[in-house]
Amino acid sequence: MTSSGGDQPAELTIGGSVRRPMRLEPADLRAYPAVTLRVTLECAGNGRALLTPRPVSQPWLVEAVGTAEWTGVPLRLLLADAGVEDGAVDVVFTGADHGVERGVEQDYQRALPVGVAVGEESDVLVAYGMNGAALPPQHGLPLRLVVPGWYGMAHVKWLRDITVTDGQFTGYQQSVAYRLGRHPEEEGEPVTRIAPRALLVPPGFPDFMSRARVVRPGTVTLEGRAWSGRAPVTRVEVSTDDGGSWGEAEVEPAGAHRWAWRRWRFAWTATLGDHVLSARATDAEGHTQPLDQPWNRGGFANNLVQRVPVVCLGPDG
Amino acid sequence: MTSSGGDQPAELTIGGSVRRPMRLEPADLRAYPAVTLRVTLECAGNGRALLTPRPVSQPWLVEAVGTAEWTGVPLRLLLADAGVEDGAVDVVFTGADHGVERGVEQDYQRALPVGVAVGEESDVLVAYGMNGAALPPQHGLPLRLVVPGWYGMAHVKWLRDITVTDGQFTGYQQSVAYRLGRHPEEEGEPVTRIAPRALLVPPGFPDFMSRARVVRPGTVTLEGRAWSGRAPVTRVEVSTDDGGSWGEAEVEPAGAHRWAWRRWRFAWTATLGDHVLSARATDAEGHTQPLDQPWNRGGFANNLVQRVPVVCLGPDG
Repeated sequence: MTSSGGDQPAELTIGGSVRRPMRLEPADLRAYPAVTLRVTLECAGNGRALLTPRPVSQPWLVEAVGTAEWTGVPLRLLLADAGVEDGAVDVVFTGADHGVERGVEQDYQRALPVGVAVGEESDVLVAYGMNGAALPPQHGLPLRLVVPGWYGMAHVKWLRDITVTDGQFTGYQQSVAYRLGRHPEEEGEPVTRIAPRALLVPPGFPDFMSRARVVRPGTVTLEGRAWSGRAPVTRVEVSTDDGGSWGEAEVEPAGAHRWAWRRWRFAWTATLGDHVLSARATDAEGHTQPLDQPWNRGGFANNLVQRVPVVCLGPDG
Repeated sequence: MTSSGGDQPAELTIGGSVRRPMRLEPADLRAYPAVTLRVTLECAGNGRALLTPRPVSQPWLVEAVGTAEWTGVPLRLLLADAGVEDGAVDVVFTGADHGVERGVEQDYQRALPVGVAVGEESDVLVAYGMNGAALPPQHGLPLRLVVPGWYGMAHVKWLRDITVTDGQFTGYQQSVAYRLGRHPEEEGEPVTRIAPRALLVPPGFPDFMSRARVVRPGTVTLEGRAWSGRAPVTRVEVSTDDGGSWGEAEVEPAGAHRWAWRRWRFAWTATLGDHVLSARATDAEGHTQPLDQPWNRGGFANNLVQRVPVVCLGPDG
């Protein structure tokens, strides 16, 4: 859903199954310790337009992903002060965006299991900053949730309320949308953590008719990024023959940024003619990318291996 | 064309039919007087996806327009120092982006007539700043041309060379692309200045199935922006009955910003049911917007009146 263009919420309320309901002004949030995390955020529908048949929704190719530094308050600190009641099940986040989807008038709402929201290890943020400045309006001004490792639908923008529930949340965006069912009668698993993906920076320069990239013969340094929301990426392989054979790319160390994509490089000796380049990421738990599409009716969480057509031309080509 | 991802040019060269060819480092440009202009920049293909049949190119609805404050050196000062030769005809601008379009390998190049580039009244900028900061990479870092009032194709990004010619420039982007012909055999007029357009901020909140906006009965303040690259906008009219009748909107004064869009407002009394909202801009030279599409094969410079479907529902709707 998009913003309704209405008033921006100035306050964040925390209520439901908590001992001390809270109403927080921006200054109250800034009194908490500020944490900055570099997080890769990917839309659950990234790659949808490459599926056959194409699911009906935003036709993303592979551009619906990015990495930013998010600054905010750890959610677990806020919920510790609010005092989550025993028996709490879900934490529901409500954004200021409001609309009608498939006939249901609604606020945008998503929930996280209480364990994800308040565990010792939880690094979920209520963020008020992005890349060292205030959140831009399109990224959720004044507040958004940042849920490292989860697809974008969990990172509720224009956040205005947090409600702890003692039953499972069954709102539209949780129970109907963002499910992996293959047909309307199949509910399917919920969309949660980001599947591993590697992307190539297209090399050379573009040919706008064929959509192929044009390179010259010789060494072409391929590079790209790889990420997974499940476990750290441990391996990236590259194919220059449309998946026929694979070589190991050099992957930069993760360093301090557990939740950010990692750069990789591969030296390719290009020869005259047509080629199809691909990269494939594998994470520490062995999750990898399929060569055949993982289709569902929403086109969610698909991490089909990318195919980049390249033509290598001589100097006069 | 998009950037080829190659090295960013650190220098700007000025040559051709000039008495003193120049090679300018960033610091050299900052030694010139800095001018800041607020300019509305619109893609020549804005609105293309609303045409029938739809021309084959980027499927813009009406989002390919924006307004920013650009800071840079007046082009006429640079060309005065370079000393344009008598008999000069065009000034050709070359960007660092390189690719193949319809089989032609090329740098992105566009020209302006020498009178537009160097006249006393010329406010063409070689810009290095946008909204108070350096140009972002996607907006042309380190330099771009800003040609107030002209469609986006003239605002060459990643600018690296300016060449004055004593004959008419006939490069691909000037002679083949960006022409208003209706079929391949018709060359058509060149695309130059921005035709008037008014756009509405869609009121209320969205219905994602019908794509209509949902409002409640009573006074709904409609607002939007209007601009023209030909002459100042002097009038905006609003229709709430799909073009059947029109009322006058209140248009804010242009103030110091000759080349920026202007805000307008209109108080509408919404009644239950379906409505189609439109706005129509007229400029000081009498140019206005058509109700029937101005079709050409590139889908350029079309300024068809916008139609925004709205459904007004009661409180229980």
